[in-house]
Amino acid sequence: MAIRIALIGTGAVGRGILEAITRKDLGIVLTGVADSRSGMIHSDGISPSDLLSRKRETGLCGDVSITADDVVRTAPYDVLVEVSPTDAATGEPATSYIRTALSRGCHVVTSNKGPVALHYHELKQEADKAGVSFRFEATVAGAIPILHTLLESLGGNEVQALYGVLNGTCNYILTRMAEEGLSYKQALDEARALGYAEADPTYDVKGIDAAIKLVILANTVLNQRITLEDIDITGIDLLTEEAIRLAEEQDATIRLIGEIIPGKNLYRLSPRIIPRHHPLVVHGSLNAIILRTDLAGDLVFSGKGAGSLETASAVLGDILSIRDRYAGGN
Amino acid sequence: MAIRIALIGTGAVGRGILEAITRKDLGIVLTGVADSRSGMIHSDGISPSDLLSRKRETGLCGDVSITADDVVRTAPYDVLVEVSPTDAATGEPATSYIRTALSRGCHVVTSNKGPVALHYHELKQEADKAGVSFRFEATVAGAIPILHTLLESLGGNEVQALYGVLNGTCNYILTRMAEEGLSYKQALDEARALGYAEADPTYDVKGIDAAIKLVILANTVLNQRITLEDIDITGIDLLTEEAIRLAEEQDATIRLIGEIIPGKNLYRLSPRIIPRHHPLVVHGSLNAIILRTDLAGDLVFSGKGAGSLETASAVLGDILSIRDRYAGGN
Repeated sequence: MAIRIALIGTGAVGRGILEAITRKDLGIVLTGVADSRSGMIHSDGISPSDLLSRKRETGLCGDVSITADDVVRTAPYDVLVEVSPTDAATGEPATSYIRTALSRGCHVVTSNKGPVALHYHELKQEADKAGVSFRFEATVAGAIPILHTLLESLGGNEVQALYGVLNGTCNYILTRMAEEGLSYKQALDEARALGYAEADPTYDVKGIDAAIKLVILANTVLNQRITLEDIDITGIDLLTEEAIRLAEEQDATIRLIGEIIPGKNLYRLSPRIIPRHHPLVVHGSLNAIILRTDLAGDLVFSGKGAGSLETASAVLGDILSIRDRYAGGN
Repeated sequence: MAIRIALIGTGAVGRGILEAITRKDLGIVLTGVADSRSGMIHSDGISPSDLLSRKRETGLCGDVSITADDVVRTAPYDVLVEVSPTDAATGEPATSYIRTALSRGCHVVTSNKGPVALHYHELKQEADKAGVSFRFEATVAGAIPILHTLLESLGGNEVQALYGVLNGTCNYILTRMAEEGLSYKQALDEARALGYAEADPTYDVKGIDAAIKLVILANTVLNQRITLEDIDITGIDLLTEEAIRLAEEQDATIRLIGEIIPGKNLYRLSPRIIPRHHPLVVHGSLNAIILRTDLAGDLVFSGKGAGSLETASAVLGDILSIRDRYAGGN
């Protein structure tokens, strides 16, 4: 059973999705696509490989007279796949696109954290009213399907605590400081040179990115109602190489750990000293999560925290779950 | 939206399920239950807490004139929850119960490996024909929701390789041999004393249990069609403490690793020397799995491989997935 999608955003993640649906027979038909300057709508389906070539050659995915808004409002799709460049602080333009799609009775999959961190309860209510899915696996922990796991596979469990390494940039910096004795500044420069850190790394190193992921985890799968202000945040930007050296001398190291303990209303993100072979001590840009549950005990997950293919994997998982569910799967 | 279940089997796993649905509001109504000597059918619902007390006091879950077969054939349920004591070699009586439930157009959740390892393709076909679900998360890796993750969350991925520590008993023995310098025999005796190993440990230590789990993984989520004979199996029963000591001297250790590489038709279970801090080196009775995928990269999962609550967690996850899917969830 095929499912029709409209794709908003043809950056690295969008291209990852297009490449995957070109290579694989996933039963996904593309009926609309838009980047920031052009769009295309075709009810019979748009060839993703032609689209990729066109984008590569002309820099445009379609016709300049068609906007992303046109595609969201009028293309004939079942699922809006919203991976546009979006300001995490305002959640726009993603949130507007999502509202429009939900008001049309369409499912929504997004990779943008802003709309989920800022407006989850409102958007979920809209989706419930319309009887459709609103999914966002890609917003937390990259390739690790943690939201899906918590919502579905562990549905019978109470989560007593969640601990996570949720920002690959910070983890890369901390790994290099420990392994090579680099200063924070040296490790950050290296991360920038390798493309792991933005020119302005504030959002990552001050812990905002990881804290936003904690908000999403808390509100969407742990039944909380919190905002960024409820999280006690300490970044890694003031960490000295001495602090790391002292930890290493005790066979420990430092990682930026997010913690949610629902029963205590504890929401914290801070650099923590942990034993060097603890499951949360993943290396480089990896992410890791420990769940403490009442039935399943402790579960540990780790994997790549970012990357276009990894994000595409999460988005595709959401699309295929919707397809299987609404096409009457098994 | 409530879902009606009939529970076949009130051993440790069955009791774990009953305790969970007593404690939590999961929207699960019990309309039938059976142990090996008695049964009960009640279309208005059976109180799981009364049932647990009755079982504790009388050793019976219901009326001796009602058999498990009666419950499977006639109780009014949506999902058969099949956790009866079953011979893994023949898959009975579980397979017969499952066939009956599917022929009635009911969903099936089982914790028994036999039916899945021996008859997956037949039973899946029956389920597809009836438009119902056949689920068995509890059969592999205990509390780790690996089947669900592979089937749904990672649906867009090709799995290039799977490596796993899938038998908690063997892992416990290997851990103790390495940590305490115990001989195989001493470690096995300890595992027996703690209830991690059966009086006859053949099934575990010869690798049969882990190999059956590889068959299930291969056939159900990796699109293979294999049997136990296709797996190259070496157990741990001939491992010497010298082999482990030599590995440890190189900062490595030995674990019983299952491997599936679909592209090479490679299916192997054998003790392997691996670096001591490799993600598959989990301790005690834990299980661990590494997936190598084309989009999501490498993902690592670890958690408890056995235990009644852990198994109950997996069974409940299956039941709730079915409920959400068929009740028109989101």
